[in-house]
Amino acid sequence: METFLYPNKADWPTILARPTQSVDDLSPLVAEIFEKVGELGDEAIKGYTKTYDGADLSVFQVSQQELAQAEKAVPIALKSAIKLAKTNIEKFHSAQKTARVEVETMEGVQCWQEKRPIQKVGLYIPGGTAPLFSTILMLAIPAKQAGCDEIVLCSPPDKNGKLANEILYTAQLCGVTKIFKIGGIQAVAAMTLGTESIPKVYKIFGPGNQYVTVAKQWATKYGVAIDMPAGPSELLVVADQHANAAFVASDLLSQAEHGVDSQVILVATSEAIIAKVKDEINQQLKALPRREIATKAIANSRFILVENNEVALALINEYGPEHFIVCVKNEAFFIDNIVNAGSVFIGDYTPESVGDYASGTNHTLPTNGYAKQYSGVNLDSFMKSMTFQKLSSTGIQNIGPSVELMADAEGLQAHKNAVSLRLKQLDEA
Amino acid sequence: METFLYPNKADWPTILARPTQSVDDLSPLVAEIFEKVGELGDEAIKGYTKTYDGADLSVFQVSQQELAQAEKAVPIALKSAIKLAKTNIEKFHSAQKTARVEVETMEGVQCWQEKRPIQKVGLYIPGGTAPLFSTILMLAIPAKQAGCDEIVLCSPPDKNGKLANEILYTAQLCGVTKIFKIGGIQAVAAMTLGTESIPKVYKIFGPGNQYVTVAKQWATKYGVAIDMPAGPSELLVVADQHANAAFVASDLLSQAEHGVDSQVILVATSEAIIAKVKDEINQQLKALPRREIATKAIANSRFILVENNEVALALINEYGPEHFIVCVKNEAFFIDNIVNAGSVFIGDYTPESVGDYASGTNHTLPTNGYAKQYSGVNLDSFMKSMTFQKLSSTGIQNIGPSVELMADAEGLQAHKNAVSLRLKQLDEA
Repeated sequence: METFLYPNKADWPTILARPTQSVDDLSPLVAEIFEKVGELGDEAIKGYTKTYDGADLSVFQVSQQELAQAEKAVPIALKSAIKLAKTNIEKFHSAQKTARVEVETMEGVQCWQEKRPIQKVGLYIPGGTAPLFSTILMLAIPAKQAGCDEIVLCSPPDKNGKLANEILYTAQLCGVTKIFKIGGIQAVAAMTLGTESIPKVYKIFGPGNQYVTVAKQWATKYGVAIDMPAGPSELLVVADQHANAAFVASDLLSQAEHGVDSQVILVATSEAIIAKVKDEINQQLKALPRREIATKAIANSRFILVENNEVALALINEYGPEHFIVCVKNEAFFIDNIVNAGSVFIGDYTPESVGDYASGTNHTLPTNGYAKQYSGVNLDSFMKSMTFQKLSSTGIQNIGPSVELMADAEGLQAHKNAVSLRLKQLDEA
Repeated sequence: METFLYPNKADWPTILARPTQSVDDLSPLVAEIFEKVGELGDEAIKGYTKTYDGADLSVFQVSQQELAQAEKAVPIALKSAIKLAKTNIEKFHSAQKTARVEVETMEGVQCWQEKRPIQKVGLYIPGGTAPLFSTILMLAIPAKQAGCDEIVLCSPPDKNGKLANEILYTAQLCGVTKIFKIGGIQAVAAMTLGTESIPKVYKIFGPGNQYVTVAKQWATKYGVAIDMPAGPSELLVVADQHANAAFVASDLLSQAEHGVDSQVILVATSEAIIAKVKDEINQQLKALPRREIATKAIANSRFILVENNEVALALINEYGPEHFIVCVKNEAFFIDNIVNAGSVFIGDYTPESVGDYASGTNHTLPTNGYAKQYSGVNLDSFMKSMTFQKLSSTGIQNIGPSVELMADAEGLQAHKNAVSLRLKQLDEA
């Protein structure tokens, strides 16, 4: 818990610096696995799954029987919760559907823009002790709504070659078309290159450890798109003297429990609230099962006292937090003026966890300051926009002479000629 | 001109293969220039500009005086053409503005999505004999409409340290905030890292040679976003027996003149139209100033005869052309069913060149099959979508128990606790 009182603007970059991650040394391993998967296909996957996950599998795709068993195994109350989240996420993402944009820019010049689905997408869901089924909701629901034909999911199996029931249940519920028990670099390589059993996809989504992160970057060399570059999760709370310290502390801790590298920042316009939040953190920490992780992340947290809301805003826009919680009286000031943030949580009753699971917004968000230039995952992440144009004879007559002049000025005579030929034919008609 | 008659689907990948480009060997040079620019700033830029552009500059920013002179030097007719194009591009891109999406997903759970501008963007405009001022229209207009604060443009100077008048005129007209006479890798490095005179930006747009392409990829390692991965320009025309062979030939040639590596494909459902188009190409070629380039590109072109529109569509969707011209009677079939294409040009009077300059659509489009997963540049390319949520006490009571259950199932107790604390306070109130 490092505290900074009214720091100079010149010092902000240092105070707000994220730990740099060195991942270059993973490249040789990633290159090797991609090469092997490209060469040997399923055989390579089998080997890596044995080595890294300790599971000896000859069939990677989850069977109908496994899906049916998982459906039975998930408790009814949890199923209801997942369904409630699904309904909210569906409502919010379906509202993002945009109509075709059609404009007659000049008489006879009809232009339109339409979004069409990315036909094949791959979702990576990490394994481990806590099955992150919520990320399936966040990725498969908009993929389905966008109209993607093939929605492939890969997740690493446990030693017995199984995926968690919650993962299988949620994947099935959300319309994933094929589920594979494959994890790590080899999963990303399989979805990038395709194997006998795993389809090649056009875009890969989802979180993962540093191996998966580097593998996703590597996939882009093969023409596959990825959702966004990844980094450790982060939260910034802005609070004034009216904030509820217990609530603020609980939010900072819910970020801190993600991992020791989680970024936790409190920006406050009141020194008293900083002290109260620190006390609350120390109390709440004691009761947490993951307190060891959270304690380490909190040790690296920053508490920054600033003069007023204006300074707070400038600092927050410079940082560009993934999650941004607003606990101040003048909420509108931050809502209206924040430019760089992934998702914004407003007021006493909007902890980050509601967005992580069930409010309806997406929890796959830009970290590492990428909120400055990247959107979080949304319906459009699963589509691409295409443009269309159709000119009538009047249209080409209206626009043609200008195109001829510009093509000529750029030294592109064949471009000009394509117009001139048509104008000439119309003149002669 | 290689011709394929009714090829087997199994052979499509070979027939449609784009030439692979090996750019890995440029990485050491790019790495070196980035390092030097990071270390020495403007001094490094000065050196590289002398070495690569032959210009000895100590001030890189274009002055007000240079802008005023350029304004005077551009012919009035060309200015009018540029303004007409600007009006059309503005109409089409401003229509792409999306309203805030707001949904109450459950009672008391308010979620909304808003797009906000990327604050700082950089535009790269290639130099050379033909000044590509049209690309400035395509990038600066939507940047301005999106509300980007800083719109930086870099373009390589000639030996006298000048940029083309058309470039300066168009940049000024479209609201570029700062114009720099810097090109190549050093321009991309400067916009990525910032120097004394060149601001660091968040996203870099624009075409370029292989050096610029590799430099843009390199920039992403520093957290800068880029418009899209680049490749040689390409055009695919689908034609049936009703198509006008002279028009089709002129379109294929206007693509071919871009460069010897341009990709030119004709897919036809009539053998006769292929023959006619070939004849027309040979005739029209003779009159072209850039016929040497065009002849080489045409030599690599492919003419593919297929059984019917259905087969044509499947083949075209597999290829994913940057530019797609539809010259068939049943236009609607292709308009409705094309999934992978950058921009679509429909009918006899819609040559590619109208979209390249003035119809209103954007000409910065995905090449190399990237139409499968990337949009062409559009208004949203200069913005990012952010989400917001605000829950009332009723909202958290409606959604809270489900969030608690899901957080518990994912083993994230602090996430659960952030909700439980609030529910408890409301229960006690």
